[in-house]
Amino acid sequence: MKIALNKQTDHSLPEQIFQSISDRILSGLMIEGEKLPSVRKLAEQLEVSLVTVQKSYELLEKKQLIERRQGKGSYVRRSEQKTVETNPYNWQNMIEDFLPRAQTWMEMKSFSREYKYNLSLANLSHDLLPVYELTDMITKVIRDEPMILTKYSPGPGDQILREVVSEYLVDEGLVVPADKIVITSGAQQGLELIAKTFLGEGDVVFVEAPTYIGIIDILKSRGVTIKTVPTNEEGMNLNILLQMCEQFSPKFIYTNPTFQNPTGTILSEKKRRRLVDIAQAFNVIIMEDDPWGELRFEGSIKSMKSMDENGHVIYLKSFSKTISPGFRVGCIIADGKILNKLKASKSVSDLGSPLLNQRIIARFIQSFNFGQHFKKMNALLLLRRNLLIETLNDLQIEGLKWTVPSGGPVMWITFPTQVNTEHLLIDALKQELSFLPSAMCYPNEPEVNHLRISYGNLSLNTYKESLKLFKEVVKNHMESLNPFTEDTPLF
Amino acid sequence: MKIALNKQTDHSLPEQIFQSISDRILSGLMIEGEKLPSVRKLAEQLEVSLVTVQKSYELLEKKQLIERRQGKGSYVRRSEQKTVETNPYNWQNMIEDFLPRAQTWMEMKSFSREYKYNLSLANLSHDLLPVYELTDMITKVIRDEPMILTKYSPGPGDQILREVVSEYLVDEGLVVPADKIVITSGAQQGLELIAKTFLGEGDVVFVEAPTYIGIIDILKSRGVTIKTVPTNEEGMNLNILLQMCEQFSPKFIYTNPTFQNPTGTILSEKKRRRLVDIAQAFNVIIMEDDPWGELRFEGSIKSMKSMDENGHVIYLKSFSKTISPGFRVGCIIADGKILNKLKASKSVSDLGSPLLNQRIIARFIQSFNFGQHFKKMNALLLLRRNLLIETLNDLQIEGLKWTVPSGGPVMWITFPTQVNTEHLLIDALKQELSFLPSAMCYPNEPEVNHLRISYGNLSLNTYKESLKLFKEVVKNHMESLNPFTEDTPLF
Repeated sequence: MKIALNKQTDHSLPEQIFQSISDRILSGLMIEGEKLPSVRKLAEQLEVSLVTVQKSYELLEKKQLIERRQGKGSYVRRSEQKTVETNPYNWQNMIEDFLPRAQTWMEMKSFSREYKYNLSLANLSHDLLPVYELTDMITKVIRDEPMILTKYSPGPGDQILREVVSEYLVDEGLVVPADKIVITSGAQQGLELIAKTFLGEGDVVFVEAPTYIGIIDILKSRGVTIKTVPTNEEGMNLNILLQMCEQFSPKFIYTNPTFQNPTGTILSEKKRRRLVDIAQAFNVIIMEDDPWGELRFEGSIKSMKSMDENGHVIYLKSFSKTISPGFRVGCIIADGKILNKLKASKSVSDLGSPLLNQRIIARFIQSFNFGQHFKKMNALLLLRRNLLIETLNDLQIEGLKWTVPSGGPVMWITFPTQVNTEHLLIDALKQELSFLPSAMCYPNEPEVNHLRISYGNLSLNTYKESLKLFKEVVKNHMESLNPFTEDTPLF
Repeated sequence: MKIALNKQTDHSLPEQIFQSISDRILSGLMIEGEKLPSVRKLAEQLEVSLVTVQKSYELLEKKQLIERRQGKGSYVRRSEQKTVETNPYNWQNMIEDFLPRAQTWMEMKSFSREYKYNLSLANLSHDLLPVYELTDMITKVIRDEPMILTKYSPGPGDQILREVVSEYLVDEGLVVPADKIVITSGAQQGLELIAKTFLGEGDVVFVEAPTYIGIIDILKSRGVTIKTVPTNEEGMNLNILLQMCEQFSPKFIYTNPTFQNPTGTILSEKKRRRLVDIAQAFNVIIMEDDPWGELRFEGSIKSMKSMDENGHVIYLKSFSKTISPGFRVGCIIADGKILNKLKASKSVSDLGSPLLNQRIIARFIQSFNFGQHFKKMNALLLLRRNLLIETLNDLQIEGLKWTVPSGGPVMWITFPTQVNTEHLLIDALKQELSFLPSAMCYPNEPEVNHLRISYGNLSLNTYKESLKLFKEVVKNHMESLNPFTEDTPLF
């Protein structure tokens, strides 16, 4: 902690130290619960006596800014009465920035609170992921190739991984050479890479409504105009999209056609072909985001990339849902100049993704029996989806509707219009239960009467408990909305 | 073609257009045979006169970067006669992008060719890095905490790592709470994060000349105006910088004050204090890039961040040179609203860095004896630096000069002005020997008679061989330049 002490002033040293720390706390730069340096450490650093620092900490405690915990140290006090006063960082108010929205961050902050009954995060539980096979592979890779720790990856990705991914994708019906694959740190980085390389102010991008919250943040940071395409259980309305293309000349269309996030719906093969045709006709670029197409309960569906002849589709794949979210490995597939630019842009962004992670995923994909794994995992996911449907049926709420995803980890639930799911969430959080309310899934005017449930995030038992809890919370909330319950005489 | 033009500068518009297209061609973003926009089209798009574009194309032609074909237009010049096939992706020519330069990518491509005698890459050889201690730790972490594989990291970084880094930095003279630390995927991502969050068209940024090639790419992708501050063995000339602040109102100053990349020089403590003062007086933000401050042969020097009172300094640290480049773990330290925005921006960019890598680095830092390691590693690096100095002395070239870094892995060598190090590099590559020529280290007018040697990248034996080779290549090149060798009779 940098504290400028001035000896030519009538404020004593303890007062100056007090003031400096107090400023930091009141302006939110030191946050509630944050630990202060120990008295000894701060005294040494500021070259003052222990007594001086001791006195300043006593002042802070008296003003209820910090609390001292026996044997543990001093912490910024938790308090609701915080008034912001002049602080040394106020000049920063004039620094313009280019990040007008970051719901992803808010949402991640809520993950990290780790509600016990987290039905919000679209992640898969450890009992659905191949954790032990992966740890074995980690051990193997660092034993066989320790020297990868001393090397950078090539910017566009480890060649071995790119070749392995190329083979992996054949099973998903996509034939692309390794050279057309750019490895990214998760699909989110891929989306961001595409946006920052090709999109800027004045550009128009179409998205589904509702859509993935992460893409909204990214597009807004680029200053583009986002237009929403009306979307229902069968995906985007392509007749309207066609009219919109004529009217707005979009540069990109972002879509998540397989088990869409947040609705879980699927765009039919026929509609995919038509969308690719439209893209060709208008020279629009489709961003086809496919984070979890492998998690399917039945059949399979061709990617738009596999229908793409002239490089109008950029395809994004993540391994966060099929192998491990903590590894942050995904990829982009593109053609021509777009591909070239993305390779360059990835290199400039971070000098390439971690080589260790790439090599581990490469060798894991090579040796793992995905067919068998998906069969088992998807059967378990389907079971979870069905438990959710049972719960919703049990609720017997008139007007309650939901999508029935044929794959993926999320379901979209629509309440009667008088329900605001952000209010429902307040009730839920009191019970340690969370879900994704719909409001943040719309870039423009939000709809507030939907919510997304992620049914793969919890272990099965906790998931069952959370469904019970969800039922209760919804029931109570609905009753609180409607004063005319069955027990209330009408006259 | 997106070109950010700045009318408040002493570079003429034709020069700016020339510079932007030249950057694209030299960094491989526009490829041989690619067609340029017609003069009329570009003039319309940039809202400048036909003559302006005409002049810039003439400059490009003069520099042999493009060729103009009668009645057909202008094309990026081909080094060899290659026929361009019509390809289905030609429609992509009209897609505007926001990446005008990517020398980092070119440089990385050359790494991946893996020249045997690579004196170019500023990396440390495996015999200088704690590889085996690190592999042991990897095994330990996945044995103790396999479940981290099933989790995302919080956006701003794993809390355990942030606390460990906070303690680590105390030894480097920097006292910051964990909460002010944002973990990034290497320092490069940190630079990019800062730029994309706070910089845009119209902003002015000062950099040293020469400077780190990665920052030039990043700044150009944001469309900012880059101004270079004259720099010598003692770092930036602060008297000139002060005048420039008055004239240009910069938003950021990027500096790499400790063993600067590419020169290896150091900014004195006195100058650091003055620079922080200037930043405060003008409310400019300093990006203090410190990738390898720990690699010091003597003494130590305070970071500007430790002198910063009001949040004017954003500090970047990398663990690529001290632990492992392949892990991609670095961090940013900032205050106030800047900090808050960076946390949000990091989350939006990639949903956080890989948790596995963060947790491994955290536990590694906690348990590793860095004091002892640095002592040994730096002694070995110093030995390598001295071998390079010996080699340079041996060369006995009049006018050959070099910096004598007191730390870090790079040295800057200046040849007499008739030498172009890009030509020297062509000779060197024939021998599998590479170094970094100076041209790409300048954002505006390049100087071409310097080069950077990285003396830590090779194992000691290969390094010695490469010095021998370097001596030969330089000698031969110098002789080829000067027809009057000792054996040539003057009359």
